[in-house]
Amino acid sequence: MTNWLVNALRAAIADGRLRVGATLPATRILADDLGVSRGVVVEAYRRLGDEGLVNARTGVGTVVTPLRSAPHAVKQAPVGGRSAAEPLAPPLPLPQLVVPVEVDLSPGVPDLSAFPRAAWLRAERAVLNNATASDLGYGDPRGNARLRQELAGWLARIRGIRANADDIIIVAGVAQSLALLAQRQRAQGATTIAVEDPGSRGARDELAHWGLEPVPVPVDEHGLRVAELARTGLPAALLTPAHQFPTGVVLTPQRRRALLDWATAGGLIVEDDYDAEYRYDRAPVPALQASAPAMVAYTGSTSKTLAPGMRLGWLIPPRRLHADLVAAKHASDLGSPAIPQLVLAHLIAAGELDRHVRLMRARHRTRRDALLTALRQHLPQARVQGVAAGLHLLITLPDRSGKVDDTDLAERIRQAGVLVHPLSWHRQRSGPPGLVIGYAAHPPDRLREAARRIGVTVEAATQLELS
Amino acid sequence: MTNWLVNALRAAIADGRLRVGATLPATRILADDLGVSRGVVVEAYRRLGDEGLVNARTGVGTVVTPLRSAPHAVKQAPVGGRSAAEPLAPPLPLPQLVVPVEVDLSPGVPDLSAFPRAAWLRAERAVLNNATASDLGYGDPRGNARLRQELAGWLARIRGIRANADDIIIVAGVAQSLALLAQRQRAQGATTIAVEDPGSRGARDELAHWGLEPVPVPVDEHGLRVAELARTGLPAALLTPAHQFPTGVVLTPQRRRALLDWATAGGLIVEDDYDAEYRYDRAPVPALQASAPAMVAYTGSTSKTLAPGMRLGWLIPPRRLHADLVAAKHASDLGSPAIPQLVLAHLIAAGELDRHVRLMRARHRTRRDALLTALRQHLPQARVQGVAAGLHLLITLPDRSGKVDDTDLAERIRQAGVLVHPLSWHRQRSGPPGLVIGYAAHPPDRLREAARRIGVTVEAATQLELS
Repeated sequence: MTNWLVNALRAAIADGRLRVGATLPATRILADDLGVSRGVVVEAYRRLGDEGLVNARTGVGTVVTPLRSAPHAVKQAPVGGRSAAEPLAPPLPLPQLVVPVEVDLSPGVPDLSAFPRAAWLRAERAVLNNATASDLGYGDPRGNARLRQELAGWLARIRGIRANADDIIIVAGVAQSLALLAQRQRAQGATTIAVEDPGSRGARDELAHWGLEPVPVPVDEHGLRVAELARTGLPAALLTPAHQFPTGVVLTPQRRRALLDWATAGGLIVEDDYDAEYRYDRAPVPALQASAPAMVAYTGSTSKTLAPGMRLGWLIPPRRLHADLVAAKHASDLGSPAIPQLVLAHLIAAGELDRHVRLMRARHRTRRDALLTALRQHLPQARVQGVAAGLHLLITLPDRSGKVDDTDLAERIRQAGVLVHPLSWHRQRSGPPGLVIGYAAHPPDRLREAARRIGVTVEAATQLELS
Repeated sequence: MTNWLVNALRAAIADGRLRVGATLPATRILADDLGVSRGVVVEAYRRLGDEGLVNARTGVGTVVTPLRSAPHAVKQAPVGGRSAAEPLAPPLPLPQLVVPVEVDLSPGVPDLSAFPRAAWLRAERAVLNNATASDLGYGDPRGNARLRQELAGWLARIRGIRANADDIIIVAGVAQSLALLAQRQRAQGATTIAVEDPGSRGARDELAHWGLEPVPVPVDEHGLRVAELARTGLPAALLTPAHQFPTGVVLTPQRRRALLDWATAGGLIVEDDYDAEYRYDRAPVPALQASAPAMVAYTGSTSKTLAPGMRLGWLIPPRRLHADLVAAKHASDLGSPAIPQLVLAHLIAAGELDRHVRLMRARHRTRRDALLTALRQHLPQARVQGVAAGLHLLITLPDRSGKVDDTDLAERIRQAGVLVHPLSWHRQRSGPPGLVIGYAAHPPDRLREAARRIGVTVEAATQLELS
């Protein structure tokens, strides 16, 4: 029991649910909540103290102690399992230990219960039967040639990407693409990069870790405000043009043209083609890379189509960056693991990936519709955005008083058993309050119940401000 | 045909077989060798020229052009699939295109035909049946908890490692451990690291990529000369104490004690526990980490027990470095892929990894004995070292004249169809000529034939020098 509690608390500290400076519950209270003896809690706190994770302070209680700062860190990169380069859950402000979350609506997580286990296992069997010794040896740092070949065709077909197999670098997800690109930019003397605001907090933290200051450029209903980007003189910009995180807007044709003009004048576009596979109401816009392969470093992953835990993605840089990025990949890990690459190549070749994405798209659309209907019923005041694609939507709330704090709101909703992200977690500059709500991982009934609780909580919390 | 040739040449340039500055064969000669029309070769050279990989210079021929320098590079890290942090094949000096290699005796590659496919597939089925959604989601950047638990027990049992599951960071092989450690050392202001000489060229190049100058410290028959290390004032040292690469010597107890004294005075020991699983004639020495967990960053991988293409390894740092290294891992790729981690945990728990290592050890011993006997017959002048463990041995040659060039010798042996490494590839300072010969990947008959060819070639090349 003590072990379990130590592990649970340690995990909560590691992934940021228990933040530095947070006070742990009093031992008697936590013991009561958990139905264990107080000695168990005392012993657990003592062991965490021995590990240097917490510190008992007289009159204050047991407090989570700061980690040592990260290497090269401009800001501290959170050591969380969730916050990341892809638009992911940042650490939430309060521990989940006492009130368990019943419905986790963190954005960015697909329906993992639908992972295509049977197809994966069939593909793996075929791969293991056919893999040669050289497939399993020290491979090409760009990745397995068969996978790069399959991906070139697949991305051309579904996203209009213009690349051949030799342009592609297989990476450990979009996070690694950003790490490699940041290293290259730093080596060229860059110290800044434009990012969308609101935008992915995980990406921002990661770029800062590698020494690139993420400079916010506002996003409006047409996407990134390119005119403001152009005025900054920044050397590069990270965007999610197909489905902006977290607003869900699509970059308009006018803005796309303006962005390409900016790049022609010397800027580098980093295109995180996040969620592009899940467009529900019409065909997705093509990738920016399709318009200008020489100006765009394109990246995507299987995190949303298969599972985040795959850590399998691709980076298609402009050719002038290719050699530097391959060298950086090689110096990071020699290359990505062979077997999952071969399995993915097999799944693409057999049409299994397409089949899975189609199935998921239909399932996610149903879930989105259920959530949307329920939110309109339970939270009619809210403005709902970003519904056309992806795995999440954004609601913003009228705030005539300027008093609605969405972090506080998210915490109250969590206490009602539902985990959502406050929009301000993903903002660098202030703006209207909002909630980012993922819908892919839960069936319609649970989404309806979650919407009801969100509605009740928001009503209660914002009281007259929303009337 | 042109495509094939372009790809082959591009690959040879990418992995370093065709080095920067190397002259490609004259078009007519290569066309004759390959049995293709000269136009095919001319067109291939033209396309490589368009890609900026080669440059036609009047009077010189077509020359491989330098890559752009790598980010943070002190020296250029080779963009090769083979050279790496683990003691691996560095780029060989001449192209393999014209004379195909019949027997590749590059060190560091296990018998990949023996990869335990059936056990792997059984484990994968069990893993896919039992994996939860959170197993497949954004996980702990330290790696899957079950794998860390299994590894803690396994490493304690087979290597005496003192660590619990929370001390372990799952990484993409030893290469990533070195990248993370180098980043941390740089962030602390270090610019140098001691390395063994001779030692792994791949590790050296990788450390240089990350901005740490690898400073050579000589290795003799007792292992690293710790007294010389202590005189340098260097902040850290990378060693392969259980089976030094490439000499195969084991660090003696006296040297181990001296090394720990050095670390007690403030030095960091980076222990690459390379090849420790394959000790043939007596029990392996325990890992250094077992003596002094607070002074040693211990790292190992499945590259030699399963396959290099797994890219799956572990890093067990001193606790004071742990948080920084987890942050660096998180900022590099969020964490390693989930499924292979779960499969490895299953293989360890089921005893399958032990079974496989036992099987491999017996097979490798037979192969080593076959090569050893054949080398004594065909190359009686050579001194053979490093036979007690690992996947390769080292032969050094008497060179009273100082005229034997082992790079030239390796090239002649390659022309006789056998690929071995010249010892000087792994040296920073000059020393007696030698050849590093891997024996794990081939059955005894092929090893005997390879030894015969090596003997004949060495005799012919060194002529009277060896008499």
